[in-house]
Amino acid sequence: MTDSLDYAATVLRRCDELAAFSEDEGRLTRRFASPALRAAGEAVREWMEAAGMTVRRDAIGNLIGRSGDANRRTLLIGSHLDTVRDAGRFDGALGVLIGIACAELLRDLPYAIEVVAFADEEGARYGTSYLGSRAFVGCFDEEWLERRDADGVAMRTALGRFGGSPDAIAGCRRDPADLMGYYEVHIEQGPTLESQDVALGVVTAIAGQTRATITFSGVAGHAGTVAMSLRRDALTAAAEWIIATETLARETDGLVATVGQLTLDPGVGNVIPGRATLTLDLRHAEDPVRIRAGEELRRCAEAIAASRELAVEWRSHATPAVGLSPKLTEQLAEAVAATGQPVVRLPSGAGHDAAIVSTIAPAAMLFVRCAGGVSHNPAESVTVQDVAAAIDATTRFLELAA
Amino acid sequence: MTDSLDYAATVLRRCDELAAFSEDEGRLTRRFASPALRAAGEAVREWMEAAGMTVRRDAIGNLIGRSGDANRRTLLIGSHLDTVRDAGRFDGALGVLIGIACAELLRDLPYAIEVVAFADEEGARYGTSYLGSRAFVGCFDEEWLERRDADGVAMRTALGRFGGSPDAIAGCRRDPADLMGYYEVHIEQGPTLESQDVALGVVTAIAGQTRATITFSGVAGHAGTVAMSLRRDALTAAAEWIIATETLARETDGLVATVGQLTLDPGVGNVIPGRATLTLDLRHAEDPVRIRAGEELRRCAEAIAASRELAVEWRSHATPAVGLSPKLTEQLAEAVAATGQPVVRLPSGAGHDAAIVSTIAPAAMLFVRCAGGVSHNPAESVTVQDVAAAIDATTRFLELAA
Repeated sequence: MTDSLDYAATVLRRCDELAAFSEDEGRLTRRFASPALRAAGEAVREWMEAAGMTVRRDAIGNLIGRSGDANRRTLLIGSHLDTVRDAGRFDGALGVLIGIACAELLRDLPYAIEVVAFADEEGARYGTSYLGSRAFVGCFDEEWLERRDADGVAMRTALGRFGGSPDAIAGCRRDPADLMGYYEVHIEQGPTLESQDVALGVVTAIAGQTRATITFSGVAGHAGTVAMSLRRDALTAAAEWIIATETLARETDGLVATVGQLTLDPGVGNVIPGRATLTLDLRHAEDPVRIRAGEELRRCAEAIAASRELAVEWRSHATPAVGLSPKLTEQLAEAVAATGQPVVRLPSGAGHDAAIVSTIAPAAMLFVRCAGGVSHNPAESVTVQDVAAAIDATTRFLELAA
Repeated sequence: MTDSLDYAATVLRRCDELAAFSEDEGRLTRRFASPALRAAGEAVREWMEAAGMTVRRDAIGNLIGRSGDANRRTLLIGSHLDTVRDAGRFDGALGVLIGIACAELLRDLPYAIEVVAFADEEGARYGTSYLGSRAFVGCFDEEWLERRDADGVAMRTALGRFGGSPDAIAGCRRDPADLMGYYEVHIEQGPTLESQDVALGVVTAIAGQTRATITFSGVAGHAGTVAMSLRRDALTAAAEWIIATETLARETDGLVATVGQLTLDPGVGNVIPGRATLTLDLRHAEDPVRIRAGEELRRCAEAIAASRELAVEWRSHATPAVGLSPKLTEQLAEAVAATGQPVVRLPSGAGHDAAIVSTIAPAAMLFVRCAGGVSHNPAESVTVQDVAAAIDATTRFLELAA
């Protein structure tokens, strides 16, 4: 434990050092193929080499440090080095740096470890997330190279300047036969662990998501002259549905439902809203639960609209849940238990590189408690004790994986 | 009745003619002190003169036609000639033209009639409504003359060009001792009469109004990673309050409550709203009912915020209800009954010149059914039968007032 506390302190110091590599003065912004990402990668390369790893950069810009014989089967430990705008310093970087710390701690495993620092997870520059892990698993779409950022710079140009090889991205693809699995440590980005007073969480799945846009259409009217009984108010219909949505999510274990946008037409204080347009973000680790909930909420919107003599329009699209490896996840739970930490299992509501890499290798994920559940924000914060616990659990897990 | 149908047809034809006097090509916009208002006034002047009236324009631009001896006490019949942007042709004009028709029908009343076409009720040009009737009752604020319209034209300049006398507005004030009362016919601007299948409504009062801005402040968060039980969602709190508001208004006779604006911060689909800001428009003909309801809704917002661990801020201001004359209103109800129409009494949720003139003379108001309750819209529509009924009721009322 003393060892892991020392390593944890090193990890946190390195997170601070990486936070200095930014495109923006005074705040952390480190997007795909930026000079800031390149500089951060050079620092990470030195730490990988100090841990005894052989380091290379692939065509999309992922930085890969390998320890262990060339012929041995490989366990991947990954996360990303890019950030959103005005980011925190732990989202992504923490997983990479814990991977390096553990590779340094365990130099004589009977398999090879590769620590992968993905070049793009957030998608903050080109609006397409997971560029790094998509190239890594062989599902990079070459058309993305023609996308332009806000300054008009094509991805192909940016990647070339970065030192990548736009024409060789197909070569990033890893052969599943070589891979034992993929493991990722990440801050939770939510308040569940903090609320349960535990340091670590074993991720069970990465939630599937339904995104819908719902429009209630009634009749606008004068706020002073239309009696309540004669109104067809789009907002009160929407409010009834929002409460029904919250109630369903509260009553359905593991379901989260969010209305994040709501706009009114005409949106004037003394006019009854004629139209209300709102968004639904619905997530659950089990697709059937999410799909049933979506159908129920749609029927509910239709029933509310019918009872209020309104029209309702519902447009939605969905992405399915990603299952993690039951075997690796059990080994991870065992490892956490072996360190004396309580084993808390929870799905990930946010997406991660693990969701992509799970298509070519069995995957497992460990969450680390973050203060207030805050992420994508400079206030992101983790404790050295929790990072030490994550290093302990990870080293046990890597030993069990053998 | 044949007479009144003929007069009603004339009134509607004149409404059509007035609609041609507009500042905007292809739609009706006739704001205070505009050339369009001046031209409309000249047409009205001719119709007043044809009805045997002596016509003058006062310093603020109100057009006043008088029939009857100079020394007799005077009953005022008024409404306004200005409009909102893209207006209908009946809001205001109908009351003026019915007044002229009735003055023409009843040339030998034992008192004088003055038909007043107010120059500004809507406030569409300078953002201060009732300029015409405020000058008429002596509560015009001279500072308003320095206000500028969207083109930077000061009210003083515009009024001078219009032919008014900015420095003589105090002289518009009428001596209450000369006045028997004030009477106004107006389209209902709401659907109550249509829903009850009646042509006319006797207005009981002009509703008082509370306008409030309510802000619920919770905690923004990731839509995927914050469990329902850990959320402090500002929108779901607002939705609960919106439903409570609708319920209270439905259960309180004559109360109308409207949330017309709602904005979310940050207002992004995958982020739990941290702040919701909404408006309340609350109206009732009896101030104590409105005040009690406002207090109850404020307590309700505070209780919802407390139970959800949110903060709530409430800012409001109010204008009291305007009572109409019980005596004139009873005479108007008698007049309506005498024409064979059912007597429906209802408060006015919207403001009218009658609210201002009631400060110097007992006032009564008659509503005319309008299709769909629509107003402030080119789709405003009334039937010739309903206008004839209004003329019938008005002539009876004028006879009773003697």
